[in-house]
Amino acid sequence: MQLQVAIDRVTLDAAVAVAKQLDGHTDIIEMGTSLVKDYGFAGIQAMHQAITKSKLLVDLKTIDEGPYEFKQGYAAGADILTVMGASSTATLDATYQVAEDQGKQMMIDLLEVDDTKLATITHYPNAIYALHHSVDRADKMNPVATVADFHAAHPEVAHLAIAGGINLDGAKELAEQGLTDIVIVGSTIMKAADPVAATQTFMEAMN
Amino acid sequence: MQLQVAIDRVTLDAAVAVAKQLDGHTDIIEMGTSLVKDYGFAGIQAMHQAITKSKLLVDLKTIDEGPYEFKQGYAAGADILTVMGASSTATLDATYQVAEDQGKQMMIDLLEVDDTKLATITHYPNAIYALHHSVDRADKMNPVATVADFHAAHPEVAHLAIAGGINLDGAKELAEQGLTDIVIVGSTIMKAADPVAATQTFMEAMN
Repeated sequence: MQLQVAIDRVTLDAAVAVAKQLDGHTDIIEMGTSLVKDYGFAGIQAMHQAITKSKLLVDLKTIDEGPYEFKQGYAAGADILTVMGASSTATLDATYQVAEDQGKQMMIDLLEVDDTKLATITHYPNAIYALHHSVDRADKMNPVATVADFHAAHPEVAHLAIAGGINLDGAKELAEQGLTDIVIVGSTIMKAADPVAATQTFMEAMN
Repeated sequence: MQLQVAIDRVTLDAAVAVAKQLDGHTDIIEMGTSLVKDYGFAGIQAMHQAITKSKLLVDLKTIDEGPYEFKQGYAAGADILTVMGASSTATLDATYQVAEDQGKQMMIDLLEVDDTKLATITHYPNAIYALHHSVDRADKMNPVATVADFHAAHPEVAHLAIAGGINLDGAKELAEQGLTDIVIVGSTIMKAADPVAATQTFMEAMN
């Protein structure tokens, strides 16, 4: 299981500084949507230049204009880009094609995707499907149960990620369960007194 | 009926230049999502400084972290911000609250929102509901029929906008129909030899 550490809602200078610290300690560093919308393409390039060992995921949250956004994102240096599962299948087809053509990866954010829609978008074999609980919602999820339920309903999905309030115990349980490729952790690591040490604690617990 | 002209997939310099030309000729100038993701917060500020007479709509397409994105967008100078109807109702509640608190407007982008979801999000009286057909889709829509069907199903929605391949005849028919607050036109105007003249032609046809 890989660890993805998400950086969000800080200045670009702070994001670059922490990305340099985390580089190589975590599998994937995420540039959150807030940083994309605050700093744009130049911000993605700055994050790319800061990271030499970990992969860079840019949380673009594309929902339309798929080919344009994905070409821009990969050109700026992203290894993995996100597209919303709530997009039209035409958009998902287009972003998947760009990812495949460039030998890069696409993550489908399943935020607020219901079962009816989900059933129409599980046919992208190399895509990572990210179970995602909105930060704006007050109710919380049980990550292990969420993954188990998803896997039972959609065994055809080979690559799973999960995000939304995952703590150390949750990450450990997900690793033991063995169904998740990537666990995404944000504030639990980023708000720790020492984010590098917190990252190492997660990596040790998971492996 | 108001006209909203959308600027997309150009450099910020080109977007600012055409925004200055269009300022005052159209009711609303839209900074498209591509410009937000390419140029970020500083790009929004540049568009805000370029526009003194028309309103500035920033197509943020917020789908999570509603309070953060909406506060940033209004702080940068937007008059109207977009949120995806596909968001959680918690996100929509939060963005609506920010808009109301600041005396600004929120547009809900109904891209790929099905009837079940729609029925749960029609209770924001001051929001503008935007019927939107993905640019990535090959099939086209009939704007007048789309608006008529929506109004029949949801007479409780007071403010309607429509986007996606609207031409001059479509805009004229929408104006005659009298159910739409805002018609959104992108490439038909922006790819004209003279975008200001094309804008004036639309404004005359609609009023």
